[in-house]
Amino acid sequence: MIDAAMPKGPLSGLLVLDLTRVLAGPYCTLNLADLGARVIKIEMPVTGDDSRQIGPFVGDGEGRTSAYFASVNRNKESIALDLKNPEDRVIFEGWLARADVLVENFTPGTMSRLGYGWEDIHRRFPALVMASISGFGQTGPSRELPAYDMVVQAMGGVLSLTGEEDGPPTRVGVSIGDLAAGLFGVIGIQAALLDRVGTGIGRHVDVAMLDSQVSLLENALARFQIDGQVPRPIGSRHPSITPFGVFKAADGYMVAAAGNDKMFLRLCATLGLEGLIADPLYSSNSSRCTNHEALKKIIEGVLALATVAHWLALLRGQGIPCGPMNDVAAVMADPQVNARDMLPDLPLPRGLSMKVARSPVRFSGAALQPVLQAPELDQHRAALLAELELSVAPRQFPLSRTKETT
Amino acid sequence: MIDAAMPKGPLSGLLVLDLTRVLAGPYCTLNLADLGARVIKIEMPVTGDDSRQIGPFVGDGEGRTSAYFASVNRNKESIALDLKNPEDRVIFEGWLARADVLVENFTPGTMSRLGYGWEDIHRRFPALVMASISGFGQTGPSRELPAYDMVVQAMGGVLSLTGEEDGPPTRVGVSIGDLAAGLFGVIGIQAALLDRVGTGIGRHVDVAMLDSQVSLLENALARFQIDGQVPRPIGSRHPSITPFGVFKAADGYMVAAAGNDKMFLRLCATLGLEGLIADPLYSSNSSRCTNHEALKKIIEGVLALATVAHWLALLRGQGIPCGPMNDVAAVMADPQVNARDMLPDLPLPRGLSMKVARSPVRFSGAALQPVLQAPELDQHRAALLAELELSVAPRQFPLSRTKETT
Repeated sequence: MIDAAMPKGPLSGLLVLDLTRVLAGPYCTLNLADLGARVIKIEMPVTGDDSRQIGPFVGDGEGRTSAYFASVNRNKESIALDLKNPEDRVIFEGWLARADVLVENFTPGTMSRLGYGWEDIHRRFPALVMASISGFGQTGPSRELPAYDMVVQAMGGVLSLTGEEDGPPTRVGVSIGDLAAGLFGVIGIQAALLDRVGTGIGRHVDVAMLDSQVSLLENALARFQIDGQVPRPIGSRHPSITPFGVFKAADGYMVAAAGNDKMFLRLCATLGLEGLIADPLYSSNSSRCTNHEALKKIIEGVLALATVAHWLALLRGQGIPCGPMNDVAAVMADPQVNARDMLPDLPLPRGLSMKVARSPVRFSGAALQPVLQAPELDQHRAALLAELELSVAPRQFPLSRTKETT
Repeated sequence: MIDAAMPKGPLSGLLVLDLTRVLAGPYCTLNLADLGARVIKIEMPVTGDDSRQIGPFVGDGEGRTSAYFASVNRNKESIALDLKNPEDRVIFEGWLARADVLVENFTPGTMSRLGYGWEDIHRRFPALVMASISGFGQTGPSRELPAYDMVVQAMGGVLSLTGEEDGPPTRVGVSIGDLAAGLFGVIGIQAALLDRVGTGIGRHVDVAMLDSQVSLLENALARFQIDGQVPRPIGSRHPSITPFGVFKAADGYMVAAAGNDKMFLRLCATLGLEGLIADPLYSSNSSRCTNHEALKKIIEGVLALATVAHWLALLRGQGIPCGPMNDVAAVMADPQVNARDMLPDLPLPRGLSMKVARSPVRFSGAALQPVLQAPELDQHRAALLAELELSVAPRQFPLSRTKETT
């Protein structure tokens, strides 16, 4: 354990071995760490996790640190192991025998070629839960194809729904292809652990990034099947609730939403637009959806008369859902975000630090987990070998780039 | 239980009482149902869940069914209870005494006013896990403000990162504000259940939609703090990996991604662009990020010579992550999506059916859960009262719209 004095999260006592690289897998195990699990990151010798080479960087040259890597791999330990090397396999298996969970995001087939496919793992470590996060899943014709975030955003349809009306396809501004798969990975792992309470037996959890995108399609699937129109990007409004979107006030953009007729009445009253309430063009949500363009013009005609701050105060006073359009700087300054302590300081090498987002899941009776520096490659080797009661002599890595374990 | 013969998911045996409405909460409990939990949806008399009135609809007039409601509330039972009515409170509390989990997404303070705040619940049902999903969380200055998906997409910064370069802010095409909070809700509930295995004591899980958006900001936070530039929408490329994005081929858009130098070499070799490999403008990921526009033009110059299908076959043959740009129709026809049985048929009233997305989480040794029709409002009243051994006489609801429990 990194620090025995840390507050106990709900998953404290749980041991996770983490073979994952870059984002979907590391985000999964980060969330487990934020819940209190102990996560041991097993990296390729010499190069480590690919994301150690992905910017932005703090510092430069040999001493540079990837802030990308640091933010997703905080609160983890690191040991470098070559899973094709017999000595390293002994270390790995020593930890497998102690672990509750093994997480990997190699291309399907890789773990089997290493002798650590699910059948092997399950036979030798029957209580171990194993989670495999991959682009396309462990089955199906595309299972061995490589995938990255944007590939599954595109193939899963989310990209086809995002963007300006009649504009080009637009990426979701965060890596939702990876992040969603990581969250479903956490869900699968915890479900398998709950199941194990009764059975004592581990299960293999198979999460595909593509499947995860499809499961987020929400009502786009229903709209296509019912009205026969392929859903397209529609800018910044909701496809089936109106008014619900971005509006321009005198000094910038803001968001407001009226999810039902009662709320629409209240919005009209607040903006001095009572005339709309009985107008058949706007009296029901479905007529408002049909006439969304005209309605937006009417609403923006009023909003243009004052500032975002003015309108937000007024609408909030009436209980109407609304908010400012925050960029990252505004998010970091947001009073609610700070009151919730969502952006703690992450220590970086050389006494630096950076604010990172913590898990949004809060528990009664559990302090927030401390935010601990991401590991240097192989940083915890000696301690991890000592725990296994194996020799702590540091292994000599070749100076050249070794063959990857993939 | 709806059907005792259904395959047992990892959460089978778990009983969830669901007070949630519209999307974040219902998506949370849908995911619990897909894992095998039994979910009893408790709705307001007469109107039920607001989303019963949100389109698209199947049929019209009085007999219409919301496909929006149906897809998110499949595999649940329904009973209509007015939590201000003493008789209904007895029924609710009878089920509370049997339940493992209570989920609600009212505005903070509502449950306390009903006498079911966490303190009350925990005192009377100490083993019960309670999850509250709200716009801004149970604490902080904005806690009582109402929020919808787009409000938190805007306030959490994701909207500020999505869209065309220099274009207006653009909504993510799915309700990621709701869906992310729903997934974090599942994660919090399962963590509390795992914790309960050791302690026997339930915890209160507090998930805010705004916090959930912030936790998805990923490397935008790091980029802002390191280079001091507020991250803006950048269309369809990755902010810190190049080439990684949407490219135009002869007959349409496609996606390709080279996440490291090795992959970039392979991409150049495949496209006949070996000249780029030694060019200092493109030899490292950071120089490629700087010169992304020129690089995109060079790549599209080659891609314009053939079709998407041609290039995808070629790139896939070389193990380069790539894919087509699928709209919803193409997703539904995708061989991998269908091989994974991601879009089963959901029965609808009057013998109709519609394809819906199932959970992307697969388990070894567990059959996929069957997909069961969403309930009519109060459909399971008699059976649910009989299970409590209370009178099964149907309660007479007033014919007019009752006061809401919120």
